[in-house]
Amino acid sequence: MTRAITTTLETPALLLDEARMERNIERMRRQVQRLGVAFRPHVKTCKCLDVARRIMTSPEGPITVSTLLEADYFAERGVKDILYAVVIAPNKMDHVLALQARGARMSIILDSVESALGVGQRLAGGSSGVRVLIEVDSDGHRSGVKPDSPDLLAVARALAEGGVEVGGVMTHAGASYECRSPEALRAMAEQERAAVVLAAQRLRGAGFACPVVSVGSTPTALFAQHLEGVTELRAGVYVFFDLVMAGIGVCAVDDIALSVLATVIGHQREKGWTLLDAGWMAMSRDRGTAGQPVDQGYGLVCDLEGRPLGDYILVGANQEHGIMARRSGAGSDPLELPVGRQVRIFPNHACSTAAQFGAYEVVDAKGQVKGRWQRFNGW
Amino acid sequence: MTRAITTTLETPALLLDEARMERNIERMRRQVQRLGVAFRPHVKTCKCLDVARRIMTSPEGPITVSTLLEADYFAERGVKDILYAVVIAPNKMDHVLALQARGARMSIILDSVESALGVGQRLAGGSSGVRVLIEVDSDGHRSGVKPDSPDLLAVARALAEGGVEVGGVMTHAGASYECRSPEALRAMAEQERAAVVLAAQRLRGAGFACPVVSVGSTPTALFAQHLEGVTELRAGVYVFFDLVMAGIGVCAVDDIALSVLATVIGHQREKGWTLLDAGWMAMSRDRGTAGQPVDQGYGLVCDLEGRPLGDYILVGANQEHGIMARRSGAGSDPLELPVGRQVRIFPNHACSTAAQFGAYEVVDAKGQVKGRWQRFNGW
Repeated sequence: MTRAITTTLETPALLLDEARMERNIERMRRQVQRLGVAFRPHVKTCKCLDVARRIMTSPEGPITVSTLLEADYFAERGVKDILYAVVIAPNKMDHVLALQARGARMSIILDSVESALGVGQRLAGGSSGVRVLIEVDSDGHRSGVKPDSPDLLAVARALAEGGVEVGGVMTHAGASYECRSPEALRAMAEQERAAVVLAAQRLRGAGFACPVVSVGSTPTALFAQHLEGVTELRAGVYVFFDLVMAGIGVCAVDDIALSVLATVIGHQREKGWTLLDAGWMAMSRDRGTAGQPVDQGYGLVCDLEGRPLGDYILVGANQEHGIMARRSGAGSDPLELPVGRQVRIFPNHACSTAAQFGAYEVVDAKGQVKGRWQRFNGW
Repeated sequence: MTRAITTTLETPALLLDEARMERNIERMRRQVQRLGVAFRPHVKTCKCLDVARRIMTSPEGPITVSTLLEADYFAERGVKDILYAVVIAPNKMDHVLALQARGARMSIILDSVESALGVGQRLAGGSSGVRVLIEVDSDGHRSGVKPDSPDLLAVARALAEGGVEVGGVMTHAGASYECRSPEALRAMAEQERAAVVLAAQRLRGAGFACPVVSVGSTPTALFAQHLEGVTELRAGVYVFFDLVMAGIGVCAVDDIALSVLATVIGHQREKGWTLLDAGWMAMSRDRGTAGQPVDQGYGLVCDLEGRPLGDYILVGANQEHGIMARRSGAGSDPLELPVGRQVRIFPNHACSTAAQFGAYEVVDAKGQVKGRWQRFNGW
């Protein structure tokens, strides 16, 4: 049974437009097929079995996770092949080994001799079956060894000393979020590919098999021209998209599948403000478009069909209050929405906004709520 | 049984320093006593029964909430007197009435004739027992009617038309977060008090009883010189404090009771970066100190005893990665912390950081974890 959005949902609520999501999934599916690599979707954005089932290439995975809680959740639900894509901390090794013992095939990553020696001790000569990848820094934005650095081989040798096989290399070109044109996105995708392929070649030249060569971010995944030498691709935010992705030209605003349903609770007419019951607790504090050519404030305000209401955004937010006004600042001609009227707000960043909620209200192509999909948060 | 922080907790984890919290609670208790008003703590910061029990003046409340989920949670646990301090949306009236029917004494707020007429219809002549307060705008930062505006009396008359008593007035001087000196904080507290007392006087002059006169924000609560004409005070963040509060001089850094425990996972030595396993998902995206004289990045990095590690902050954050470096920018002399070493990170804003977690790890005065207190999130 379907229900109308406005009459049944208390606000704020997290809406998931199923048709848009399916379109986004299909777009990535075609791209992966064209590129001819394996696909290991990142479930850090959705943290939801119903969504993950739609993006995984099999019920057993593979998937990428950002927390071991994600690994637990999906392992308990039948997923077998799990890459935990944050450099492993020593205090998480027991947890990884417990997951592996329960039947998951875990991959972990590291980027230093220190970590490699520590992991070698814990993996006891490789008999655990946990796969270890070396993280490569392809863009200078966070962790990883430079692909042309002596450190790369030093890390591989430290693993070998502990009897641990070099399972491969992986990188994430997070700097792709700073790109501003299709040319820049294509160049970043090639930079990401070239870095990790170089690392794999150097490792193989030194006698390490290095079977896995893994890349990915939503922008580079969608703009890669080819992925020669790469074995698998990772991406997560593409399933929903968001204003940051629209701002860098990776999607259109009307590809954004996630929005926050909010209700008008009042006005400050002399300031051109309409007050909504969705503040930063609902939208998150993410201001990812602040550095983009079009600053979307705390979110772009749309009608219930998902069409932008002119240039109205959330110009400000308190914990449970959103201030809707013109992007240009306080105006003298506010859009008059009566108390009780509902709007949808597109988020800056799908990962951070979705994390403020415990469930998705799934909206079908007719704008009816067809179901509620649980998600989880935390560690 | 207590456990040492470092050996038992997987990171990131949310630590609550019990001794600091008790000190903060005692400070507010003394201030409330001195001011001679009732205290209605705001539970939007803690969202936790164990903390709420320590700040409520009785097991039945009163409390202030920011969501109806908070109202549900505390009502189910014996709290009777609940103020929902966000202008009521029409789609929440069923929920409020259900809470009232289950035995809670609910207060709601509104600030427009539109809302007053709608609420009057739903409250059916006041027989429900739900108390309605008029929100007063004392500082221009979000909702509320101006205390000297004709709208104030118009809202009261609209309530009366529907047979609803004017239960009182309330305001929140959220602009106090922008103050930068004790003088400014004292002046803002007086501005908040004067606004709501003026509103009450005008309402009484027009024949409305207006028994409740409610003010509050942590900064104004702690800096108010007197609260003549006010009946109750509200505050929430004082129980934990945070870097924003320290930045405006409301507390010292070593009053901050909340921190995120994180582990070193690697380095980018040429940049002076130490990588931690706590990113913006753990800290939240709140950058509340960005506009303050001292920008604390995504948080101030401290040792396990809660002492700042020189001028190290989180200069950047990815979803699950924190980049620890000197406040001054990338340095050539990074503090060398080996992989596996743990640190505590003080948050910009207690409300937003706590909301990223499902529980507090309570640390006693000896630095031992003595228990886990559940909290909740969402709506």
